[in-house]
Amino acid sequence: MAHLFEVQIYYEDTDFSGVVYHANYLRFFERAREHVLGAGELVRMWREEQKGFVVYKATQQFKEGAVFGDIVEIHSVARLESEYRVVFDQKAIRKSDGRLLVDASIEMVCIDGQRTPVRVPLTEKLRAMMAP
Amino acid sequence: MAHLFEVQIYYEDTDFSGVVYHANYLRFFERAREHVLGAGELVRMWREEQKGFVVYKATQQFKEGAVFGDIVEIHSVARLESEYRVVFDQKAIRKSDGRLLVDASIEMVCIDGQRTPVRVPLTEKLRAMMAP
Amino acid sequence: MAHLFEVQIYYEDTDFSGVVYHANYLRFFERAREHVLGAGELVRMWREEQKGFVVYKATQQFKEGAVFGDIVEIHSVARLESEYRVVFDQKAIRKSDGRLLVDASIEMVCIDGQRTPVRVPLTEKLRAMMAP
Amino acid sequence: MAHLFEVQIYYEDTDFSGVVYHANYLRFFERAREHVLGAGELVRMWREEQKGFVVYKATQQFKEGAVFGDIVEIHSVARLESEYRVVFDQKAIRKSDGRLLVDASIEMVCIDGQRTPVRVPLTEKLRAMMAP
Repeated sequence: MAHLFEVQIYYEDTDFSGVVYHANYLRFFERAREHVLGAGELVRMWREEQKGFVVYKATQQFKEGAVFGDIVEIHSVARLESEYRVVFDQKAIRKSDGRLLVDASIEMVCIDGQRTPVRVPLTEKLRAMMAP
Repeated sequence: MAHLFEVQIYYEDTDFSGVVYHANYLRFFERAREHVLGAGELVRMWREEQKGFVVYKATQQFKEGAVFGDIVEIHSVARLESEYRVVFDQKAIRKSDGRLLVDASIEMVCIDGQRTPVRVPLTEKLRAMMAP
Repeated sequence: MAHLFEVQIYYEDTDFSGVVYHANYLRFFERAREHVLGAGELVRMWREEQKGFVVYKATQQFKEGAVFGDIVEIHSVARLESEYRVVFDQKAIRKSDGRLLVDASIEMVCIDGQRTPVRVPLTEKLRAMMAP
Repeated sequence: MAHLFEVQIYYEDTDFSGVVYHANYLRFFERAREHVLGAGELVRMWREEQKGFVVYKATQQFKEGAVFGDIVEIHSVARLESEYRVVFDQKAIRKSDGRLLVDASIEMVCIDGQRTPVRVPLTEKLRAMMAP
């Protein structure tokens, strides 16, 4: 089941063309993933184990632009590609009309303090949102 | 009575020193003001009357830094300095311990399409939060 | 021949993990493309013809992270996929040691004021950097 | 003598009102200060001594907005207020017509790893730009 997270579009998110600056969707997708994984757990992993998730590959298709005042829903689904790699399929959808704005696939790895890949920690929250 | 708005601190908000990058508090303060004024009303003003609020002067004192995972409360109070100028006194306060992080005063004017100052529109939301 | 553009990494570009926040590379790639196309020409297109380039698809592989103080070279090569689509292959390379940091492919379309795709304008600068 | 640093305005710097988003000038001012102080020296201070400069107070007056394609000159002058505090008077000026866009005063302190204020290190570059 997809994890749902809402982003409100502020002045700061737009550019002079009138729509959201394209790089900002990567921020929205990351905010959603931080809620999926839990900021508290991410902080604990970082402080106690010096481990963190990093984006390894990102693919995005930009269909339509959100504008100031829009509420954008980030729908996230995670799947484990291997013990070392988790892929988030994430969609940005305008809440008012259900239009798909950006369709993304974000591959993540987990690294330690020496930036060496480690096994993806299957936290409870992460396991809960994965297909069986 | 102060308007209250919560900001969660994400990776994107921090810099390598470990705390929130100082320029980002201006973003948080603006997000709060957009909620005070109402995004819908701001959009209507812009589309129908080509009017918008702009920051004329900003003063900020940085006391402490928020970190990843913090919830920061933005407390906002507005006062009309003249028919053409509204001042927002805004504080960023860490929710978990009530510590004052940033103390700010933001003076705003309202301009039209030619960037000429116009009277500050006293919307219902704005009036409601001002002292009598 | 690749177009070369240098980006210096500032505090604002990093996050608390110590390296450049991943979404910022899309900004660096766009800065480089704006130099390829020429800001003056982009402004003229926007003002006189209401035309602008927008990113349709972005694929990025993140290999290594740049840190504060690094100089990152953006190498850009363009190719016309069709009359309506231009693809920029862009690499972010650390100047000091020549390491590849991010490998990207950015597909762009050109749209008019109604956000309808129009033919990619083959400006002199764009033509100059394309393979024959 | 003022230190001079040029910033080109890209898409990412603007918002849908057509001009540079106000919070971004703090970024431009910081980029200029990093050149004043020297990124190499800042990195060395951070790594070897766990010391860094942080903004304690920022005051900005916004006069006019820069637009996409503008070159903005950041003029910086530093003065030592005390052994613990250095103030940068910084102006953002549009290169093409010399108009003052933003007038700022940025007070900085230097802190160690425990975020305790330490004496401002009078680097050669910093001393060179100060009035006698």
